[in-house]
Amino acid sequence: MLMKASSQSLTEQLSSRFAERIRDRLLAPGARLPSVRQCAQQQGVSPSTVVAAYDQLLAQGLVEARKNRGFFVREIAVQQPRQRATKAPAGPAAVDAWATAAGFTPTRPAPVDATALIRGMFHRVSNKPQPGMGVFPPEWLESTFMPAAVRKVTGTRALHEFSLQYGEPMGDSSLRRALSEKLSRLNVHAGPDNIITTVGATHALDIVSRTLLRPGDPVMVEEPGWAVEFARLTAMGMRLLPVPRRADGPDLEVMARYCEAHRPKLYVSVSVFHNPTGYCLTPGSAHRILQLANQYDFHIVEDDTYSHIAPEHATRLCALDGLQRTIHVSGFAKVLAPNWRVGFLAAHPDLVPRLLDTKLLATLTTPALLERALALCIEQGQLRRHAERLRTRLDAARARSVKLALAAGCTFAAEPAGLFGWVDTGVDTDALAQRMLDEGYLLAPGALFHAQRKPSTLMRINFATTQDAAFWRTYGRLVREIG
Amino acid sequence: MLMKASSQSLTEQLSSRFAERIRDRLLAPGARLPSVRQCAQQQGVSPSTVVAAYDQLLAQGLVEARKNRGFFVREIAVQQPRQRATKAPAGPAAVDAWATAAGFTPTRPAPVDATALIRGMFHRVSNKPQPGMGVFPPEWLESTFMPAAVRKVTGTRALHEFSLQYGEPMGDSSLRRALSEKLSRLNVHAGPDNIITTVGATHALDIVSRTLLRPGDPVMVEEPGWAVEFARLTAMGMRLLPVPRRADGPDLEVMARYCEAHRPKLYVSVSVFHNPTGYCLTPGSAHRILQLANQYDFHIVEDDTYSHIAPEHATRLCALDGLQRTIHVSGFAKVLAPNWRVGFLAAHPDLVPRLLDTKLLATLTTPALLERALALCIEQGQLRRHAERLRTRLDAARARSVKLALAAGCTFAAEPAGLFGWVDTGVDTDALAQRMLDEGYLLAPGALFHAQRKPSTLMRINFATTQDAAFWRTYGRLVREIG
Repeated sequence: MLMKASSQSLTEQLSSRFAERIRDRLLAPGARLPSVRQCAQQQGVSPSTVVAAYDQLLAQGLVEARKNRGFFVREIAVQQPRQRATKAPAGPAAVDAWATAAGFTPTRPAPVDATALIRGMFHRVSNKPQPGMGVFPPEWLESTFMPAAVRKVTGTRALHEFSLQYGEPMGDSSLRRALSEKLSRLNVHAGPDNIITTVGATHALDIVSRTLLRPGDPVMVEEPGWAVEFARLTAMGMRLLPVPRRADGPDLEVMARYCEAHRPKLYVSVSVFHNPTGYCLTPGSAHRILQLANQYDFHIVEDDTYSHIAPEHATRLCALDGLQRTIHVSGFAKVLAPNWRVGFLAAHPDLVPRLLDTKLLATLTTPALLERALALCIEQGQLRRHAERLRTRLDAARARSVKLALAAGCTFAAEPAGLFGWVDTGVDTDALAQRMLDEGYLLAPGALFHAQRKPSTLMRINFATTQDAAFWRTYGRLVREIG
Repeated sequence: MLMKASSQSLTEQLSSRFAERIRDRLLAPGARLPSVRQCAQQQGVSPSTVVAAYDQLLAQGLVEARKNRGFFVREIAVQQPRQRATKAPAGPAAVDAWATAAGFTPTRPAPVDATALIRGMFHRVSNKPQPGMGVFPPEWLESTFMPAAVRKVTGTRALHEFSLQYGEPMGDSSLRRALSEKLSRLNVHAGPDNIITTVGATHALDIVSRTLLRPGDPVMVEEPGWAVEFARLTAMGMRLLPVPRRADGPDLEVMARYCEAHRPKLYVSVSVFHNPTGYCLTPGSAHRILQLANQYDFHIVEDDTYSHIAPEHATRLCALDGLQRTIHVSGFAKVLAPNWRVGFLAAHPDLVPRLLDTKLLATLTTPALLERALALCIEQGQLRRHAERLRTRLDAARARSVKLALAAGCTFAAEPAGLFGWVDTGVDTDALAQRMLDEGYLLAPGALFHAQRKPSTLMRINFATTQDAAFWRTYGRLVREIG
């Protein structure tokens, strides 16, 4: 809300709000600002205030005016891949073309880009529950066992023991033992020596990509899928081959065609409680995927981040395949502590030395203190019981959120399950996201989950943070205004 | 030492010792095992025991016999870059060639490879002080203030606050403020908003490379220089341009020729207490380097890891340049806690968003708990006083080590300063390293600090761990045997 009583003038308030969004990339390069009339109406200010605010943005070099078309966010130099001063040799130039075409700057400028969503996960845009969030609200994660575990590993002696040497390259051995047991309950059999700890699941996915891929390699990803994964692979210069994700698994016909035409090196998959749809892979699809992997000789990295809130009997490629062509990745941001950044990967013994080398070159080791504390939480069964409580609470939240969403006129594009709902709003969710930001809500519009950021009427909601009628009232009002 | 009283036979002990070294890459692919006669003599066993042990290694597929030449470590499949099943298009293939030619598997097989030295930093090969170590011995780093700082940030409330959300992408704000002040005392002026925390200095260097470089880019490195940096850049497919490092700085004529011929994108430098020589950059050289950087448009990443034990007035490129073309990188493994993995980079505001994107895609955030504890140690001046104590202790250790080294017949290739000595042994240090391993000492042979791993009579010693006469006696005996 713009405030008349503020020490800043309304013009200044409006221009700094836009400036902040442009810098945070909540308004991406190329995005169009609302027309002066629209903006004045939305913000309840006079058109001259808007004109003055847009002038300030022009003067700051943040937007540009295009004749008869309005104001657009400028392609800011620092966000673009570096321009090469000299002509590169043919090889790297070809790679450059990929990286440039599909780098951080989206090919189709979208109002909310991938980095914006990631950043939205870090700083609250308001104190309201955030529907676009990728994790549980902090108050859901509070526990007594976690501080107790930390206290155990931070006695002076233990602390010195953990801190004063680099530690084990593979990661804390007691955590790897605990993870090995935990995985066996999912029928994924990996000894402690096949497990490498990482700085969260993100780092594990990064290590796998860096180890198995070279720039220009074709990689199959799920669509819709996780924006950070798209962004990382494109930044690394990979060719994304988006496979439509359906209720039972990836579209196998599309996958087979890709295999035939492109010989992809890797398939990146979330089998259980897929993000954003909540879909779970069926055993039949899993079997067929592994057949393709064997036939066409590609690896699969299975991101099992939602493992903790999923049933143990859910179908996992790693369990069927016995880690022959599959690499298991998971972490604890969704169940214990997002900022601890403890994740891991489990892989075939032949791959472990190469994956470990990549970890060494990227970060040397990882902090053992937090790993050991986590091991305690797992060993004593506290984490498992905590996850069960979260699931019960989430089930109730999901039921409430679904009811409210349906009442607000949403339809579910996927059967509600897990943490996320994949809902159809009937309006362009990029536009909706901009309007909702004014109200203090960060949405996760459908374009974010699309490899090319195609505009969409879909959006992802977090069931834990969409149980409030207040959000849905605001939502309903803005959908009517846009639609 | 092989032990007759062990439950394992001498043959088994000998073969498992070699197997372990091969797996840890202390014996790299292509390295030759000692002849049966030599080995028997060195180990004090019968030749038939050695033959039986080598047979076991053959059966395990770890070594191969070459007619009339002896036994060689096999090129193990998992350590080699993946073979491509299909022919890649011209572009990426050119990049592949670089990555393959200069990947983790050294082009010239060396008995001790880079990964081995890194791994040596993590697990003690014996309880003896390790001359090849890259950090202070753990007992030197013990303090009371560090556990006190950790206790302050691990109260239940603080712990929940730090842990249950992803945290700030740039890193803990109080640490960035403390670092900003600390840097200003080095005349490096960077506000908290120009500082990004990382998983150790290694991660900071990795982020810089990933942000500024594309595969095939030419990069100037110092030679001798830090093996992990060489290994990372080659794994990323960069072209290394090694600039000889001299007492006053890099060889400027070589640098100028590289600039003219290759237009390098980056220069990676340790200005203060250079690793492994201990050299410090002179102001004149610094000025000339920056002139070249401006003329030929390249960036400089200045690794100031040894900052804590160096005088504040030492010449730093970042201080002269005001972070225009320079990026400052440092960490706390050398002064506080190697396993905390807290490092940081400071860069020009234009670069910060791109560097931050790379951090986000690689690890999302970094653990704030340890960052906040470190901030407390800095704010209260404890870290500075601790560093002063370390310097005093190191000065005494250096004096003793230098005396012992000279008495053992070493000559110093560089004036002793800082943590490391760069000594000439007069014998091949790759061969010496193998023999010293049998005695429980991991050396850092000169080949490791050479971009192409050229055999050398030089080695790096850690002054903190080479004050014992026992080490130098063993050293003297083996040098005489080899030489």
